[in-house]
Amino acid sequence: MEKEMILELLEQRKFKELKEELESMHPVDIVEMLEDFDQKQQMLVFRLLAKEEAAEVFTDMNSDMREDLINALTDSELEEVMDEMYVDDTVDVLEEMPANVVDRLLMVTDEETRQKINILLQYPDDSAGSIMNVDYISLRKEMTVADAILKIRQVGINKETIYTCYVTEKKKLIGAVDVKDLLTAGESRLIEEIMDENVLCAKTLDDKEDVAITIKKYGLVAIPIIDHENCLVGLVTVDDAMFVLQDETTEDISIMAGVSPNEDSYFGTSVFKHAKNRTLWLMLLMLSATVTGEILGHYEAAMAVMPVLITFIPMLMGTGGNCGSQSSTLIIRGLAVGEIQFKDIFRVIFKEIRVAFVVSCLLAVVNGIRIYIMYDQNLTLAFALGLTMMAVVVMAKCIGCTLPLLAKKLGLDPAIMAAPLITTILDTCTILVYFNIVTAVFHL
Amino acid sequence: MEKEMILELLEQRKFKELKEELESMHPVDIVEMLEDFDQKQQMLVFRLLAKEEAAEVFTDMNSDMREDLINALTDSELEEVMDEMYVDDTVDVLEEMPANVVDRLLMVTDEETRQKINILLQYPDDSAGSIMNVDYISLRKEMTVADAILKIRQVGINKETIYTCYVTEKKKLIGAVDVKDLLTAGESRLIEEIMDENVLCAKTLDDKEDVAITIKKYGLVAIPIIDHENCLVGLVTVDDAMFVLQDETTEDISIMAGVSPNEDSYFGTSVFKHAKNRTLWLMLLMLSATVTGEILGHYEAAMAVMPVLITFIPMLMGTGGNCGSQSSTLIIRGLAVGEIQFKDIFRVIFKEIRVAFVVSCLLAVVNGIRIYIMYDQNLTLAFALGLTMMAVVVMAKCIGCTLPLLAKKLGLDPAIMAAPLITTILDTCTILVYFNIVTAVFHL
Repeated sequence: MEKEMILELLEQRKFKELKEELESMHPVDIVEMLEDFDQKQQMLVFRLLAKEEAAEVFTDMNSDMREDLINALTDSELEEVMDEMYVDDTVDVLEEMPANVVDRLLMVTDEETRQKINILLQYPDDSAGSIMNVDYISLRKEMTVADAILKIRQVGINKETIYTCYVTEKKKLIGAVDVKDLLTAGESRLIEEIMDENVLCAKTLDDKEDVAITIKKYGLVAIPIIDHENCLVGLVTVDDAMFVLQDETTEDISIMAGVSPNEDSYFGTSVFKHAKNRTLWLMLLMLSATVTGEILGHYEAAMAVMPVLITFIPMLMGTGGNCGSQSSTLIIRGLAVGEIQFKDIFRVIFKEIRVAFVVSCLLAVVNGIRIYIMYDQNLTLAFALGLTMMAVVVMAKCIGCTLPLLAKKLGLDPAIMAAPLITTILDTCTILVYFNIVTAVFHL
Repeated sequence: MEKEMILELLEQRKFKELKEELESMHPVDIVEMLEDFDQKQQMLVFRLLAKEEAAEVFTDMNSDMREDLINALTDSELEEVMDEMYVDDTVDVLEEMPANVVDRLLMVTDEETRQKINILLQYPDDSAGSIMNVDYISLRKEMTVADAILKIRQVGINKETIYTCYVTEKKKLIGAVDVKDLLTAGESRLIEEIMDENVLCAKTLDDKEDVAITIKKYGLVAIPIIDHENCLVGLVTVDDAMFVLQDETTEDISIMAGVSPNEDSYFGTSVFKHAKNRTLWLMLLMLSATVTGEILGHYEAAMAVMPVLITFIPMLMGTGGNCGSQSSTLIIRGLAVGEIQFKDIFRVIFKEIRVAFVVSCLLAVVNGIRIYIMYDQNLTLAFALGLTMMAVVVMAKCIGCTLPLLAKKLGLDPAIMAAPLITTILDTCTILVYFNIVTAVFHL
């Protein structure tokens, strides 16, 4: 395996071969490898990397590794790395570092970059500005295609993306030209002839998730970002968008499991942070579950007369909870990917009711038969439980599909209306339905 | 709003203005608008679209709309649309269409395209081959940069992506050149001098999700796809990758809610299909929940002596289920985004046990106090419940974090170890723990 080979070369101090080996590796893979190395080995490898590769590796590292590295590097080495980095990546790095490290990093960056950094640092965490890239290529409409290509030749080398160039007039965004069009158009044609004037763009303060969704929806490689005066200030690229979307999904999924979302990774989060993120919901649900308990308590008499009733409670509560979670989850995801909107609420309810009817019939029959067999042909009991099952399933599906939509309408995150809350709500409802039916059927 | 304006222009039959209006709209937006139009209006609008735009709109439509449209279009109109479409999109269309429509579509496509289509149709649904794009630009290593740019000029116009060009020798992939490098390198330099030789690529039969993950991991715009003989046969672009990842996440989320995953959208799925997708799990869980019921039945005696014990069951089962789901969900997501692997199992368990300890202390105390107050200072009861709570939480977190990892190890989808199953398993365990503790404490 590559890693073993690298380690061997390290021990034998065969730095020349090592250097060659590293050049053939992708920065992402180098980082993955370094994670298993001790600090001394990390430093040795890092110092052998070519400037650009070193910068990329530095960008991809996790913050702990990065901090150790910064402390170990000399100012001049650090400066070399910083020079090769894109400003937006530098900002991401700075945001994670302790003050003293930040000062040191800023010390070794040139004035111009420092200004760009300060501007980027001002954008709120969830804004497009905070993830945008400020190294873009802007053209003028009076340029010819040849001029444009020449400009890309000159400045393109240190731009993260050149696939789309933006046309500006007094800094204002007036159009976009795809490099594809530049290459395929006649050299003497003017940019204004081939530029696309209705170019999709986003504002610096737009929610970064919305921007990512736009990039996905329209299949863009990058989207230009403009400020409140419609001046072009940067762009967000598709690879950044993918990570934004992944983080948002992870956030949704944690909320759906009753865990307060968390920027850091699972292992990156301390035990107490984990506990904190999970306790709030558990506490809330535990206390609300006591309501169910109290209600259950009111039927002690009935259960005293017919103790067998107790044995059906887990099955009914479980099935109710699962039915509800199924519906709510499908709706929450539908809302997240923009497949369902609030205006569809009645279509959704109608659909869920029909689904519930089919499902509940099946469950009721299977369950009825089981009870008929297991409880010496007690037809009334089978009937009562079948009836309860149907009522519970229909109720569960209706509540399960409605609450996320209402949450959305009220501007809440629909994800809070997932399994944990739905289940707790349904437990109460299920007990009520169950005992009202059985007490009626058996005149308890 | 745009839509109203379009409708107005349609009624007034102002086709010239309408044409202009449509030209300024993005195909994706046109499709969204058409969805609210009746078929006659759809046809009118579609016929007014420019060739290329028509093809894009046709590609973005849902299958029902598309089928209606195909039936309404004449063969020559259909031919024009097909000519403008990318082969991979054509294949996606064909896969959704009924046989008679497919025949008609193939009739109007030229021989060369038809051959490409037949090849693509043979790849399994979940393979990279099934989503790859066969319109790519390949260069030869002996070309100069100028030659390469010239070639892109000539053939680039009808390629979906030209951002990365691939260098082949006897059809075998030997390198890649970024358009950026082409533009920034000297015109007279040879491709072999500037090409990147260790180029990341995937095989036609690789799982499309793995390919999408690679694209995200390395921040690629596209990845070349090679066949078993290492010959370049196509490429997968980042925008396709984003949709693959979204579908995979949706699939995971449904499985996590105990719903069999489903290719189609929520509304696109029939009531019976929905019922079918949900019943299996519900049935399974319902029947296994009866086990819990039976066990509960065994403690009738204890509950007869101390009826108050019943009232704590919902709270204990609820909290246990929620704790377990929290852990399993975090692990399942961690596995999905590659943040956690099976080898981390002991780190995970150790972490969860510590988290569980903190959480359970908090819950036990709050719960104990509540009980102490609500049940006239019954300290023993408060103690017994506090103890149960701690045992249940620790147990829930351990089971919740272990099962997904074991599933992964056994080659199962970890997502099946989510809330529904975990909750059902934990219900049984909780009841056992609870009654063993209380019967011991109160000598029942």
